Amino acid sequence: MANSGFEYVRHFEHHDAIPPSNWIVVRIDGRGFSKLCKKYSFSKPNDQRALDLMNAAATEVVRSLVDIVLAYGQSDEYSFIFHESATMFERRAAKLATTVATAFTAEYCLQWPTFFPEQQLSRPFPTFDGRCVAYPKRKILRDYLAWRQADCHINNLYNTVFWNLVLKGEMDGKAAEEALKGTLAADKNEILWSRFEVNYNNEPAIWRKGTVVYRAYDAEEGGTRQSGDVEGQRSSGGKGLGGGVSEGAKGGSKSQLEKERKRKQKARIAVEHVDIIGDGFWEARPYVLAGKRGHVEE
Amino acid sequence: MANSGFEYVRHFEHHDAIPPSNWIVVRIDGRGFSKLCKKYSFSKPNDQRALDLMNAAATEVVRSLVDIVLAYGQSDEYSFIFHESATMFERRAAKLATTVATAFTAEYCLQWPTFFPEQQLSRPFPTFDGRCVAYPKRKILRDYLAWRQADCHINNLYNTVFWNLVLKGEMDGKAAEEALKGTLAADKNEILWSRFEVNYNNEPAIWRKGTVVYRAYDAEEGGTRQSGDVEGQRSSGGKGLGGGVSEGAKGGSKSQLEKERKRKQKARIAVEHVDIIGDGFWEARPYVLAGKRGHVEE
Amino acid sequence: MANSGFEYVRHFEHHDAIPPSNWIVVRIDGRGFSKLCKKYSFSKPNDQRALDLMNAAATEVVRSLVDIVLAYGQSDEYSFIFHESATMFERRAAKLATTVATAFTAEYCLQWPTFFPEQQLSRPFPTFDGRCVAYPKRKILRDYLAWRQADCHINNLYNTVFWNLVLKGEMDGKAAEEALKGTLAADKNEILWSRFEVNYNNEPAIWRKGTVVYRAYDAEEGGTRQSGDVEGQRSSGGKGLGGGVSEGAKGGSKSQLEKERKRKQKARIAVEHVDIIGDGFWEARPYVLAGKRGHVEE
Amino acid sequence: MANSGFEYVRHFEHHDAIPPSNWIVVRIDGRGFSKLCKKYSFSKPNDQRALDLMNAAATEVVRSLVDIVLAYGQSDEYSFIFHESATMFERRAAKLATTVATAFTAEYCLQWPTFFPEQQLSRPFPTFDGRCVAYPKRKILRDYLAWRQADCHINNLYNTVFWNLVLKGEMDGKAAEEALKGTLAADKNEILWSRFEVNYNNEPAIWRKGTVVYRAYDAEEGGTRQSGDVEGQRSSGGKGLGGGVSEGAKGGSKSQLEKERKRKQKARIAVEHVDIIGDGFWEARPYVLAGKRGHVEE
Repeated sequence: MANSGFEYVRHFEHHDAIPPSNWIVVRIDGRGFSKLCKKYSFSKPNDQRALDLMNAAATEVVRSLVDIVLAYGQSDEYSFIFHESATMFERRAAKLATTVATAFTAEYCLQWPTFFPEQQLSRPFPTFDGRCVAYPKRKILRDYLAWRQADCHINNLYNTVFWNLVLKGEMDGKAAEEALKGTLAADKNEILWSRFEVNYNNEPAIWRKGTVVYRAYDAEEGGTRQSGDVEGQRSSGGKGLGGGVSEGAKGGSKSQLEKERKRKQKARIAVEHVDIIGDGFWEARPYVLAGKRGHVEE
Repeated sequence: MANSGFEYVRHFEHHDAIPPSNWIVVRIDGRGFSKLCKKYSFSKPNDQRALDLMNAAATEVVRSLVDIVLAYGQSDEYSFIFHESATMFERRAAKLATTVATAFTAEYCLQWPTFFPEQQLSRPFPTFDGRCVAYPKRKILRDYLAWRQADCHINNLYNTVFWNLVLKGEMDGKAAEEALKGTLAADKNEILWSRFEVNYNNEPAIWRKGTVVYRAYDAEEGGTRQSGDVEGQRSSGGKGLGGGVSEGAKGGSKSQLEKERKRKQKARIAVEHVDIIGDGFWEARPYVLAGKRGHVEE
Repeated sequence: MANSGFEYVRHFEHHDAIPPSNWIVVRIDGRGFSKLCKKYSFSKPNDQRALDLMNAAATEVVRSLVDIVLAYGQSDEYSFIFHESATMFERRAAKLATTVATAFTAEYCLQWPTFFPEQQLSRPFPTFDGRCVAYPKRKILRDYLAWRQADCHINNLYNTVFWNLVLKGEMDGKAAEEALKGTLAADKNEILWSRFEVNYNNEPAIWRKGTVVYRAYDAEEGGTRQSGDVEGQRSSGGKGLGGGVSEGAKGGSKSQLEKERKRKQKARIAVEHVDIIGDGFWEARPYVLAGKRGHVEE
Repeated sequence: MANSGFEYVRHFEHHDAIPPSNWIVVRIDGRGFSKLCKKYSFSKPNDQRALDLMNAAATEVVRSLVDIVLAYGQSDEYSFIFHESATMFERRAAKLATTVATAFTAEYCLQWPTFFPEQQLSRPFPTFDGRCVAYPKRKILRDYLAWRQADCHINNLYNTVFWNLVLKGEMDGKAAEEALKGTLAADKNEILWSRFEVNYNNEPAIWRKGTVVYRAYDAEEGGTRQSGDVEGQRSSGGKGLGGGVSEGAKGGSKSQLEKERKRKQKARIAVEHVDIIGDGFWEARPYVLAGKRGHVEE
């Protein structure tokens, strides 16, 4: 039973590598999570245990895949950012998306008992779909992240008012929806304050801002090791952008790369609920999106 | 904080729909399973519990995704076949691959305690990468499946001899490898028989053939319901191939489709260890790859 | 000035090969041809010289690219069909589309003086854009060709009535448009007959049916040489569909292939204005879309 | 003969838009130009008429497609650069490649008599294949252009020595090839000088550097109009990078865009044989690759 007669079927596989020098976002979304919310009686507008579980899962994914520089999550979605020079799986889109999505799913399912000790999972089990998107510039990647955080804000403000109207205001869903139609942010803040004495800005940051997960290098290190680090990773260069492509390959000796990989694996994984739309977060942690030699060059 | 200024980032997503009228294979492979085998001391050359777990996971995936017509698995891989007229997720490759891969991963992780009651999972948890491949003709799809089953046979025969040499023949791995270099199938069968009194053909079929999982329609139904079924699903037609594309949309009334979906969900999921290279399996179950009106037309 | 530092830029090129075992259609369309019609005062509703030039150009393209099995043209468009087993340019989409489009453009521009001896070309010169589409089944390819020919019919019937109303009926364009709004084919035929004594079916076939261009093998040969031919081209086989992929490579000795290529180059190029929606055309010329061994197998 | 039954075939077309905010290179190459060189007895190592014809054709292509910011050519190839914010044909790769390739082919064929008045074109006519490549950063685009110009230099130096050895040194091709094996640039310069009294640096710049074609804005204008220009084209913006995507759509009123387009059409097309590897060329003409507001921002 020789196999060679059938091997031609391999030629139907297509190349799906993300072009070099593009930031790669793998975004995962919970499948059928509105049903899942009901099934396990998630609190409204936010279920703290569910958010904590999402973040715990994301933390492990970031820890295990060292090419991820940062992740951002809100609600039932998470975006994982691979550095523009990442070479994992030769940047093949399907491999990247399925690896992140299955790692996240495994963590979510197996950590579930820690966060929902009294509710056992039953079928359909929680799963996540995923996809890759390529962003050619650092600034556009920042806009992508801003888009997700603005989305978090808009949805959370809406949901906060909606559920106050329903749970405390004794409206039914339709009435609450009607009451909110056409309102601006200021109107919503006003409703919250005047009717429920809720100051939106005092709501938990994790609800308003979502969650950022990243490999943190503490102060002293930041200046020194990190820049050495990135230098090690991206090599000395000469030909400016050549780096964008070949660094993975030529960037330092094998033992240097291995050393670097180990250092990343040991790095502290920071989990924060802060603004990432403005420049503050990024200016304080330039190494997160750093290119060559540890500084942002674009 | 209006979001509209950032929404332009959506234009970077690319369309990845698999072209219509192509069979879709989603193949998943265990990530780092050779390490996993060692960590949990899988038996060699085959660990029955591990294979049973793979099959149990695949069975649930087939059950839950009704557009899958058949799945074939061996070792740490599984291929799921979506009908050429499937319209799930608008045939988007990333969605299909991540949905199958995460559903499989969730099943594998959560069913693990059933099959390995004495070994608790620890990180890195089992995960699977996946990818989509499109096959334009039924015959080429058959060749794809034949390729995987021939691969199962070749690897299993090799592994069976190798581990007999090591475990019973007291060779070390290198010596066994050396002994097998250049041998043909007949030679391997001869070694098995003459040295270990093992008749390869008496080895368990699940090891030699792998596992086929499909939605089975029993005899009486086969002739009647199935053809009605497929008719319902694919509509009356006229314009032959038009079907390949638009059936999902025009294929029968909504209630018919819903009825059909429910019938599929209730169908018995068959799990068998049989030859799928020859025509026998397919001729006995023509409905598996049936197109319009329940018969194979291509 | 070593070049190696820059070569990394090649990694940005992407693989665009059309998957094996798909029929490839390269369709070209005249760019800005409505302006061109006015500029050179093309007759309405059809300019015979312009159609003849299109067909003369297509004939040379078919003659020069032996992997093309048939072309169909109407108005300012032409579709060139490459056999599903064609291996030209490793089936790369960009190469195929630009080669066909530039060959057609060169022919159109350089043959122009033959068909328009009194009108010299001036800028902007006639050009054609093009694109590749893959069709996985012979029947779908047939439907594609039927789509183009039905389009020819629909447009030509409309234009014939419209220009009769304008040129003989002394309507202006708007009035003619208004008069045609909502009319069916039968209505249009009736207008033509009752007002202008024009029997649409007596209009030239080239206007009503468009033009088919193909490599013709005459009667006696058809049965013998052609089947030998295709056999030569597609090899003896065994593994049915293996052919779909590897034939180009393994299909016969080099000298056989070369001989075959020469025979194709010498074949008569037929140019006909006939129905290709029904089965008649194809049944009389089975070799046109023949697969292995000269017969249609799908 | 309704057409709706066939229209499903349109769903097989795939989306091939180049992602936003990437520079687009359409590179064309002469098909079978080594045969063409012999057929029309082109001079060696360079045929001035042939180069002049290439440049004349490229000039008209740049003039007619206002989204092209620069083109670079050497030998029988030409690269046309579309601005990263270009929206022509919705950035569809096939449309861009075939439009450029056919426009170039038409120019080449129809201008041929001007440059080769005594040699009439015969079949196979000159044609060019083409393809699109996307470059995510301005610097990588610069490296692409450097790659082509370094290639020009390397080939031309080799060819200059080779043909001196053959034409003046009375070697045959094989001997000349052998003599050059393993030589460095300095060796080649030395051979040229010591044996043929040829100073390579005095060879015509068009041979050594190839040809750059671009829309030139003269000194005074450069500062003012151009910045206004780019502003007009790319709009006022707000969201920095949003521009990369949506400018085409929102970038200024229609009449502004139209005005801008006309100004571009009237601009002088510069044709130069200068170094584009170093920074000099680009620093003196910042508007060529300028982004928003006329300055390079990346």
